[in-house]
Amino acid sequence: MAVRVDLNISLDGFATTTDQTPDNPFGDDWGRLVAAYTATRTFRTRVLGDDSGAGTTGVDDRYAQEYFEGIGAEIMGAGMFGLHLHGDDPEWRGWWGDVPPFEVPVFVLTHARRDSIEFANGTVFHFVETTPEEVLARATAEAGNRDVRVGGGVDTVRQFLRAGLVDRLHLAVNPLVIGSGERIWDDLRGIENDYAFSAEVAESGVTHMTFRRD
Amino acid sequence: MAVRVDLNISLDGFATTTDQTPDNPFGDDWGRLVAAYTATRTFRTRVLGDDSGAGTTGVDDRYAQEYFEGIGAEIMGAGMFGLHLHGDDPEWRGWWGDVPPFEVPVFVLTHARRDSIEFANGTVFHFVETTPEEVLARATAEAGNRDVRVGGGVDTVRQFLRAGLVDRLHLAVNPLVIGSGERIWDDLRGIENDYAFSAEVAESGVTHMTFRRD
Repeated sequence: MAVRVDLNISLDGFATTTDQTPDNPFGDDWGRLVAAYTATRTFRTRVLGDDSGAGTTGVDDRYAQEYFEGIGAEIMGAGMFGLHLHGDDPEWRGWWGDVPPFEVPVFVLTHARRDSIEFANGTVFHFVETTPEEVLARATAEAGNRDVRVGGGVDTVRQFLRAGLVDRLHLAVNPLVIGSGERIWDDLRGIENDYAFSAEVAESGVTHMTFRRD
Repeated sequence: MAVRVDLNISLDGFATTTDQTPDNPFGDDWGRLVAAYTATRTFRTRVLGDDSGAGTTGVDDRYAQEYFEGIGAEIMGAGMFGLHLHGDDPEWRGWWGDVPPFEVPVFVLTHARRDSIEFANGTVFHFVETTPEEVLARATAEAGNRDVRVGGGVDTVRQFLRAGLVDRLHLAVNPLVIGSGERIWDDLRGIENDYAFSAEVAESGVTHMTFRRD
């Protein structure tokens, strides 16, 4: 059992974007930041339900496959579930429609009290107000022998990293400079001392960097 | 003829360090930031004068060889020459002793008026107060058919990048998080649009990233 993080970041370390507008609610930068990932055959199949076989099949796709393999539970921050924008709507069920691509229990860290939401494909969102250590204990119990992913956002990931709770950090470094947002690296000076590091460049130009400890 | 930049940076984008003390005038972080480069056989031979054949000979060394190849003139900021610390000393001749590893004309951008300094190995420091475009014209004339390097520091490099004067930017991204200093990426949003990008991972874990235009 390992605790895993996977994030797409820019060269300047941003894993969020800031160019959202009412007319363009995700902004243009987000699409550029995840372009190599969303171009993979695995993403197209797993998330878009596109079974045509379209999509890239190189190094990026191998990481996309690993992304979905062996996860038994997920943890995310309130913002990633959409509560910062939609917290006032008691009917809000996340961004992912009727078939969220998790298929496992998902623990959403929030001060808000909400009932759990269960989907037919095995995804269940639980809303909890607790420490990283405690939610990780709950997620680990649910995951059995499988891994737990800390999905995001950046603040949540950094909180788990600083607490020493992450076993594998995979960053897909995309060759673009975004200039503003939330930086993954803030307050993580010396993190390399706790991990073995490896990197691999994909055909897309994305550098997949992995920090790993046994 | 091309205008080239080569820098060692950390994962969080810092190309300078901040842990200098009177007892440790370069700090510990600088050594870690350039460790893979200074471990190469080329650095040991070219800069340290170590002809024993010691040093790494892999991907990092290939980039170190390229670093020294085909340069006909260099441009640097006042800080890189040491004028921010030693500008009051009219006898200051730079950090590099009697055999500076340039062997070509070096233009130091500074408001201070100083006489040129000539070394037996072909290195000549000229002190000029002018624009990036004008100093580049002078350096290009000196370089003949060879390339001009903008050596640093970070501010000077970013100034030339923002002015669109750089043809090849090589960044050796070292797998460590430093946490403070001067970031190479600041104010360079969208720079990827002007270049072709490639990357390559060395045995050391350093990712060599290159932005190149024809």
